[in-house]
Amino acid sequence: MSAAGLGARGEAAASSGAPRAPGRLVLVPNALDLGTAPQDLTAVLPHAVLQWAARLHHWLVEDAKSARAFLKRVHAIVPLHAPLQSLSITELPRSAKGRDARVVPNAEFAHLLAPTQGGHDVGLLSEAGLPAVADPGAAVVAAAHALGLAVLPLPGPSSLVLALAASGLEGQSFAFVGYLPQEATARVQRIRELEELSRRLRQTQIFIETPYRNAALFKALLEGAAPATRVSVSVALTLPEGWCKTATVSEWRRLTSKTVLPDRLPAVFLLQA
Amino acid sequence: MSAAGLGARGEAAASSGAPRAPGRLVLVPNALDLGTAPQDLTAVLPHAVLQWAARLHHWLVEDAKSARAFLKRVHAIVPLHAPLQSLSITELPRSAKGRDARVVPNAEFAHLLAPTQGGHDVGLLSEAGLPAVADPGAAVVAAAHALGLAVLPLPGPSSLVLALAASGLEGQSFAFVGYLPQEATARVQRIRELEELSRRLRQTQIFIETPYRNAALFKALLEGAAPATRVSVSVALTLPEGWCKTATVSEWRRLTSKTVLPDRLPAVFLLQA
Repeated sequence: MSAAGLGARGEAAASSGAPRAPGRLVLVPNALDLGTAPQDLTAVLPHAVLQWAARLHHWLVEDAKSARAFLKRVHAIVPLHAPLQSLSITELPRSAKGRDARVVPNAEFAHLLAPTQGGHDVGLLSEAGLPAVADPGAAVVAAAHALGLAVLPLPGPSSLVLALAASGLEGQSFAFVGYLPQEATARVQRIRELEELSRRLRQTQIFIETPYRNAALFKALLEGAAPATRVSVSVALTLPEGWCKTATVSEWRRLTSKTVLPDRLPAVFLLQA
Repeated sequence: MSAAGLGARGEAAASSGAPRAPGRLVLVPNALDLGTAPQDLTAVLPHAVLQWAARLHHWLVEDAKSARAFLKRVHAIVPLHAPLQSLSITELPRSAKGRDARVVPNAEFAHLLAPTQGGHDVGLLSEAGLPAVADPGAAVVAAAHALGLAVLPLPGPSSLVLALAASGLEGQSFAFVGYLPQEATARVQRIRELEELSRRLRQTQIFIETPYRNAALFKALLEGAAPATRVSVSVALTLPEGWCKTATVSEWRRLTSKTVLPDRLPAVFLLQA
């Protein structure tokens, strides 16, 4: 099979007699079920990705506990090459986890990538979806490039592009803008700014919110955006309870009593003005 | 297993005696090997997605020939529920395939979705990656929402977000801006505009080019962008010959004699100024 197709080399080459090439930074996608009932990994991850995850000994992760839970789930499908307890699982430094962590090559990260100098591949894993997209892992990837390491992104689900695909909004020009301000006035101002950007650049604007604030953000959107602006909401994509709906603000206003945004499921919001 | 986890219902329910619920529009991801040697589908698509593809009888596709080739490859892993010759495979209307097709609910698309009224799910498939992202399928998705149909995006690879993850550039704010102008002066102007946007919004700018123009675009980037701008190039991600590199423009200029961009492989370009 074709982990080879994704560039497998792994520990076998590293243990041969040949001079060791440096290991790579392997970006391992996670499922999209953070905070909900675990979904079957074969529903969201290619088999070759599960094989990769089973083979890596060195991990840099957003959260060690959820990383171990992920590897246990992998093990139930593709047995890990080494016992879970023997793996090196290191959390990213706290400073890199904040929303505003600067994305610059940083000596702080170079030592985290030290196993690559012994020929070991290092896996990067976030709590959901692709690492380094809408999460702090990019600093590690930047450090890998600064060290001249090969970076291997394994294919997996991204809730942002799934929501974009499902929205029917402009998919040939789009921006992900992160979180909106929490303060009411600033939030409305930002919504209008995003509408203006969307109109001027003909660009779909994508944003997210912490689940317990989903309902508040949705209410602000229906109050603050123009009636003709199209708004798409995607909730828990790839999960059994997942759904997606796109309508104009004025249509949503009529439907709103029937639309309840869950406060414990991840949602992605999109607008096109 | 858990195609159920992705909302499977398929033809079984439709053939029972119960009143038929309308079918859904199912967004089926394709591999990322368009124009190159076929990759193993299990390297890039989850098993549940292959099961979905094997089950659908009705397809709307960007290109019928490549859709049949895709379904043959699926069949080699998960046998199709009906012979390939018996499937309904309809190409999207030519008008929707142009880069500038308007993304609006359109009666022209409603009849393409007619099988849903008989309770049949309809698959949407593009030539590479996720449908309706950086391709014309969004018009069909918009029509599905206008008809009140459920839209089910199946998880799969997107070269744009894989390239973003692999770049180490800002992953919490990014924009995909499509193609750059081909004319030299306009292209340089656009490159500087993207740098200005990237600086002002602290936003990674992502763009693509037709493979045979990869080298010309790369040259223009190294000539037109500021020395400190970070440029990432991802070529043929998920394929054996795939690679990714990020460096500043001045670093790239020193390396450039060693860097040859292939003219037959898909590339994604990213910059952060």
